[in-house]
Amino acid sequence: MLGLYLENVHRRHPLIHNITNYVTVNDCANILLAAGASPIMADDAMEVEEITSLCNGLNLNIGTLNQRTIASMLLSGKRANREGKPVVLDPVGAGASRLRTETAERLLSEIRFSVIRGNMSEIKTLALGSGKTLGVDAAPEDAVTEENAEEVLRFAQAFSKATGAVIVITGKLDLIAAEGRGLLCRNGRAEMSRITGTGCQLSALLAGFLAANEDPFYAAAAAVAAMGLAGELGQKRMTEGEGNASYRNRIIDAIYTMTGEMLDQGEQIKVLD
Amino acid sequence: MLGLYLENVHRRHPLIHNITNYVTVNDCANILLAAGASPIMADDAMEVEEITSLCNGLNLNIGTLNQRTIASMLLSGKRANREGKPVVLDPVGAGASRLRTETAERLLSEIRFSVIRGNMSEIKTLALGSGKTLGVDAAPEDAVTEENAEEVLRFAQAFSKATGAVIVITGKLDLIAAEGRGLLCRNGRAEMSRITGTGCQLSALLAGFLAANEDPFYAAAAAVAAMGLAGELGQKRMTEGEGNASYRNRIIDAIYTMTGEMLDQGEQIKVLD
Amino acid sequence: MLGLYLENVHRRHPLIHNITNYVTVNDCANILLAAGASPIMADDAMEVEEITSLCNGLNLNIGTLNQRTIASMLLSGKRANREGKPVVLDPVGAGASRLRTETAERLLSEIRFSVIRGNMSEIKTLALGSGKTLGVDAAPEDAVTEENAEEVLRFAQAFSKATGAVIVITGKLDLIAAEGRGLLCRNGRAEMSRITGTGCQLSALLAGFLAANEDPFYAAAAAVAAMGLAGELGQKRMTEGEGNASYRNRIIDAIYTMTGEMLDQGEQIKVLD
Repeated sequence: MLGLYLENVHRRHPLIHNITNYVTVNDCANILLAAGASPIMADDAMEVEEITSLCNGLNLNIGTLNQRTIASMLLSGKRANREGKPVVLDPVGAGASRLRTETAERLLSEIRFSVIRGNMSEIKTLALGSGKTLGVDAAPEDAVTEENAEEVLRFAQAFSKATGAVIVITGKLDLIAAEGRGLLCRNGRAEMSRITGTGCQLSALLAGFLAANEDPFYAAAAAVAAMGLAGELGQKRMTEGEGNASYRNRIIDAIYTMTGEMLDQGEQIKVLD
Repeated sequence: MLGLYLENVHRRHPLIHNITNYVTVNDCANILLAAGASPIMADDAMEVEEITSLCNGLNLNIGTLNQRTIASMLLSGKRANREGKPVVLDPVGAGASRLRTETAERLLSEIRFSVIRGNMSEIKTLALGSGKTLGVDAAPEDAVTEENAEEVLRFAQAFSKATGAVIVITGKLDLIAAEGRGLLCRNGRAEMSRITGTGCQLSALLAGFLAANEDPFYAAAAAVAAMGLAGELGQKRMTEGEGNASYRNRIIDAIYTMTGEMLDQGEQIKVLD
Repeated sequence: MLGLYLENVHRRHPLIHNITNYVTVNDCANILLAAGASPIMADDAMEVEEITSLCNGLNLNIGTLNQRTIASMLLSGKRANREGKPVVLDPVGAGASRLRTETAERLLSEIRFSVIRGNMSEIKTLALGSGKTLGVDAAPEDAVTEENAEEVLRFAQAFSKATGAVIVITGKLDLIAAEGRGLLCRNGRAEMSRITGTGCQLSALLAGFLAANEDPFYAAAAAVAAMGLAGELGQKRMTEGEGNASYRNRIIDAIYTMTGEMLDQGEQIKVLD
């Protein structure tokens, strides 16, 4: 069923505005193109609102944030909100510096996000420190496991309720949470963490999937499963002597060659209650 | 005959100063190196004039322009003009925001370009909106086709006359225009548009070809044909399961391994009257 | 013996803060991950000290420096010094513009570096122009050769004495110098210079090796040998029609798959007296 969400990206070619870090920006652009979407990168305050207006979705990533781009993120996010376009937040490194934590919190307080995607530590930083006190007790361990999935889900659902966003927590297992709904995704490979930017790439894809589909919850799940499946397919094609640089290319290639049917057959999504 | 222009790049190793976007900058650097040229990237106003002065050509690309780099582009372009060095303009996204359109127009009004390369929409934005009123009627469709090539040529020649630059319009077919001269290039593959930055890479190559050759018109044609041919050769080497990430590498590899003889045999350039 | 230094990177997973250029930043991140280290890129003055504090080493590269990032480099470097963490300087393009030369000199005067890595021209610019006048006569030729290695060593040792840093001069042959010690490394391939950023990648690796090992001199030698060996191993895996884009990936892959034993067997390091 999730294959349909990928096919909608293929069919509708959403245009995605990205204000993202300069480390992985090229991969974000290429993975959007691989999925049939189109990327635009623009971060000057004098143009970001117009660019957002042209686009079908917005991806905000604070990976190499600075004073100039923070202002641009705020402008873009508000414009996207006014125009009813989906906005994704990737709070890279929230918790690692005050600037990142406070910027993520400010973005959260001024912009309505459709999806917030981070690792457990980033999401905990935002959920527990943003005045929406769930209490430290609510903090689950630093990764989603088969054992703590239900507990993490309740935590993520509370954060989803507070923000209105679908919460995506990625790691060895990925979790997709919204009020009253939860999915666990077992797709992916541990080796993906040895490539810079697989998380950033997923956030870009999330914006593409949301812009091309009506239901943000399943659109997010489809993007998460597609990225994980690409990690599996890419690894199968690795030859002897290849490492993370080749793997990076093979994952983007796998998104390029993935059909809706392949996603339907390969997705390992389980409903959590 | 165009092979000679490539061989001159191999032989003369021109040094190219690039003020370009952070999305595709690495590919621009590697494709210049692949062709035998050398890249330097520098965008701080306090150094760009000196860097331009060291170099044999300048490539200005407004892909992720900002206030700081716009000022640097102006300084560099004027210095290159004073020193008689070729300058390429890639007006990425002109028409998509006022900032891009106005910046491209300002660059056009203060700097003499040797080549302006864009897609039809970008070139139309500049040609029709820059006070050099060719009239909206002059606007051809949004891509060069076998049918409208003559009409597009007259349009591009008028823009060439107004600016003094060789005009390169890229798309499925590419057109190279100067006063009294026109070429159509059929090299290339539609799949190149699924890679971010093939246009940016061509603009970097254009600066390299112009810096290493005397005749800007044929140097531009040779760069256009080389890039298109690299797209064809790269695609022939694609194996099952590969997508746009591998294709990106294979195109740069094809520039690396291309000889003048290969370009002579592979170019599909036709004179337009 | 150098293999042990690589194994320590594998085992200790040092976290490296990079303030580096936007051209090769993605490759720097991926090669650190390939070696078992982790990269963080952050360049805003409001967060760089905190990020440096979280990390085990710092890599400062002036490749696309600007006023904003120069200030951040100074803050980070001083913090790393106060916390006793290794700092690497890559003075990209020192000598090519006053801004680069003066910035490199200012960094040298305000920060204690563990390693300074550059090509002969960059190192000469800093050693001869920084008030630590070794005299122009001391300037060796523009590359380390078998013939001038002893002469270059004495020059580099004088610069090492003046700065307290291990001096790494890279080129066809690489030289590692400290007071009373010198090594010549014959690993590597000339074709590595046809890829953008192999020098930047080595500087990132140097920070990783220093952060994971006690002896900065041999840690630096191990990083230099590992990078050169990766160039050799990567080239062996090149297939027909491949060029610099594929070679780039194959070198990072070779770091990913390199074991301590492979480095011990492949290193071509010779002691200079």
